[in-house]
Amino acid sequence: MGKKKLSRGVAIVGGGLSKMGLFKDRNSKDFFAESYLEMLGSIDKGVDPKDIDAIYIGNFTNDFFVNQAHWGPIISDLVGHVPKPVTRTEGACASSALAFREGVFAIASGFYDVVLVGGLEQMSKRTTEEITEGLGTAGSPYEVAAGFTFPGVFGNIATNYFAKYGTNRETLFNVTIKSHLNAPLNPKAQYPMTIRDFMNARIEKCRQKGMPVPEWEDEKAFLRDVTVNPPIAWPMHLFDCCPISDGASCLLLVAEDIAKSFTDNPIYVAGIGQGSGYSLHATKNITSFEATKYAAQEAYGMSGFTPDDIQFAEVHDCFSMAELIHIEDLGFFKPGEGHKATAEGLTMLAGPKPINTSGGLKSKGHPVGATGVAQIYEVWMQLREKAGKRQIPNKNLRVGGAQNLGGTGGTCSFTILERR
Amino acid sequence: MGKKKLSRGVAIVGGGLSKMGLFKDRNSKDFFAESYLEMLGSIDKGVDPKDIDAIYIGNFTNDFFVNQAHWGPIISDLVGHVPKPVTRTEGACASSALAFREGVFAIASGFYDVVLVGGLEQMSKRTTEEITEGLGTAGSPYEVAAGFTFPGVFGNIATNYFAKYGTNRETLFNVTIKSHLNAPLNPKAQYPMTIRDFMNARIEKCRQKGMPVPEWEDEKAFLRDVTVNPPIAWPMHLFDCCPISDGASCLLLVAEDIAKSFTDNPIYVAGIGQGSGYSLHATKNITSFEATKYAAQEAYGMSGFTPDDIQFAEVHDCFSMAELIHIEDLGFFKPGEGHKATAEGLTMLAGPKPINTSGGLKSKGHPVGATGVAQIYEVWMQLREKAGKRQIPNKNLRVGGAQNLGGTGGTCSFTILERR
Repeated sequence: MGKKKLSRGVAIVGGGLSKMGLFKDRNSKDFFAESYLEMLGSIDKGVDPKDIDAIYIGNFTNDFFVNQAHWGPIISDLVGHVPKPVTRTEGACASSALAFREGVFAIASGFYDVVLVGGLEQMSKRTTEEITEGLGTAGSPYEVAAGFTFPGVFGNIATNYFAKYGTNRETLFNVTIKSHLNAPLNPKAQYPMTIRDFMNARIEKCRQKGMPVPEWEDEKAFLRDVTVNPPIAWPMHLFDCCPISDGASCLLLVAEDIAKSFTDNPIYVAGIGQGSGYSLHATKNITSFEATKYAAQEAYGMSGFTPDDIQFAEVHDCFSMAELIHIEDLGFFKPGEGHKATAEGLTMLAGPKPINTSGGLKSKGHPVGATGVAQIYEVWMQLREKAGKRQIPNKNLRVGGAQNLGGTGGTCSFTILERR
Repeated sequence: MGKKKLSRGVAIVGGGLSKMGLFKDRNSKDFFAESYLEMLGSIDKGVDPKDIDAIYIGNFTNDFFVNQAHWGPIISDLVGHVPKPVTRTEGACASSALAFREGVFAIASGFYDVVLVGGLEQMSKRTTEEITEGLGTAGSPYEVAAGFTFPGVFGNIATNYFAKYGTNRETLFNVTIKSHLNAPLNPKAQYPMTIRDFMNARIEKCRQKGMPVPEWEDEKAFLRDVTVNPPIAWPMHLFDCCPISDGASCLLLVAEDIAKSFTDNPIYVAGIGQGSGYSLHATKNITSFEATKYAAQEAYGMSGFTPDDIQFAEVHDCFSMAELIHIEDLGFFKPGEGHKATAEGLTMLAGPKPINTSGGLKSKGHPVGATGVAQIYEVWMQLREKAGKRQIPNKNLRVGGAQNLGGTGGTCSFTILERR
């Protein structure tokens, strides 16, 4: 019934992202402080933190990862925000995209003018087995009970995609190689290495240890080699899966009518969309996420933009397979055409539709609660032409999107930003 | 900076609350379905569930309590809402008051017209020790590490209150006796018994077992007897503490401009407020919650009402001590006067300022994630004169409030509803 339009516009005027990685000796407050300080410094005309009316913070389950819940007031205390309000949102790996959206609503409602939104997650304190189990609780109760943790879920989706569209796992290599070409250009990336860098590192290691030196003719040959790229849940191999990460992200949102008092270059929220899905157990089409399509419909509807208008995007490549699904669900490419477009290089940094210029979850890292806002941060950086070495060469960047997925498609968000 | 006013009004047109208790053989979906069905039936002119634009669901940590996170899409699936959006909020025991507020913002922003908000928690699958530990993670990291779980926190607050205002633990009996007088009038209450009922049950049990029959002259004598009311964390005794509970709650919010198409008797959201606090480790005044005061300031400011205008309220009596703090922080009584007002009966159902007509968390039950919306549900029921046997006798009820607290005052919400 809703009009799906905001009665007051919202702009992004600042942002920050912590260096991603595994930092067992640091904690979530450190990561958030790192992103918060960058945010403060990013605002041309400055902001008085006292003017921040409210905070929204996305977190998946630090409850489980560090045995501490209720992160809202911890963050409020950290940044000197007490006694003003803070709200945590959770939508699994889409937790902070939800925080972003609530920040937009809080301003659009007329109640607040300046809202900080962000996300955080600390995964490194747990073992890989515990993390796999913890992440599994984001799937539907039917899935984990049946043994479906996420690599298995996306492996299942992949075999279906391959059968339906007549391709095979080699097509996924193109996604991984492309993401890792962008990563070294991003100083925040957890793995700032190309696949060729990984190859060379392995060759060097073999030489140092006096072992036979492998001869891979190219990156694809490297990824084909199970001794370096072992299967995780067939056909998902190691290099198809994003890493476990720690990190935090934040963005400062303000009402459109006051945006210019913070910066001459505000980036506007053109469209917001969110959807929910059945997860695997009742989905009608296993090579598409219903929640993404609904989120896209809301965001396109609000913005008036079409998929062709979205010049570049960050999408939720928790697995290489997921990127292909998303770029089809968002309408960038027709169903079954995403893998061809990727093979043709259309999604590369210098291509006509750059996808995951940050390096994506695969190489930038995926501290799950931080990811949604981290993606929007990347789009904001690109639109301001502040993305440094990974800046998209297109000089007329005006519109970009960020798509964030939680669980097995249980929650999805799509956000469209615009430079005017 | 924000104006703290909504640019579009919001009304409550329906609501539901599950029976509270410990239901080990049922699950959170059952509880939510129970509250949802009551909500559907409560709307005079009916609602088509297809018209619900979005859902907000508060949950503290089913992550820990039932090892399942990401409850948003589970609830979306349950009520046939897929692919429309659902968002979980968390603020410890204030989780669903935050869901309520986000629902208000989503409508006030102009984006949606009809939003379902609710909360749920399932605590009965864990042992009491595990629950104490799980709840402890809602406190600040400094507290749990120092051994402060919640009974200890509120015990500490109580000894400070007693010393400061020259009273003692006997004053808390008045809170407990009053709450338990309301509980038998609430068919949803977990313990629909007065303290006298507990006394008589114990006497009957002793008779049946051939044990000496205790002779308590009144309820206070019963509460004074440590064989029936043992200390938990001095001076908090068993009857000062709310129980462990399962349950769910929901309310249907719609834009003010369409409210009359759902019911002739909408109840309007007059004020919303939320605040954050330092918890114990850095609080300046241990007998007051800064977050409550800030939340109250926002809600009073938006509504134009003063504490005297609030004719009745639900407040977060996780412990009897907490109720006294809240009725002072909300401005109903001066600091140090809450215990006197309670002793004088001013907060009783037939008194001039009824508090916790539902029986409160103490006797109604406290499934933590469900509580915030459950409190607002009670205020909504009273304002519609649908509270049955516990209906406040005042025939001119027009304004009521609900205050929800999370952690050691880390998160607090205050909501004011109005009948026009």
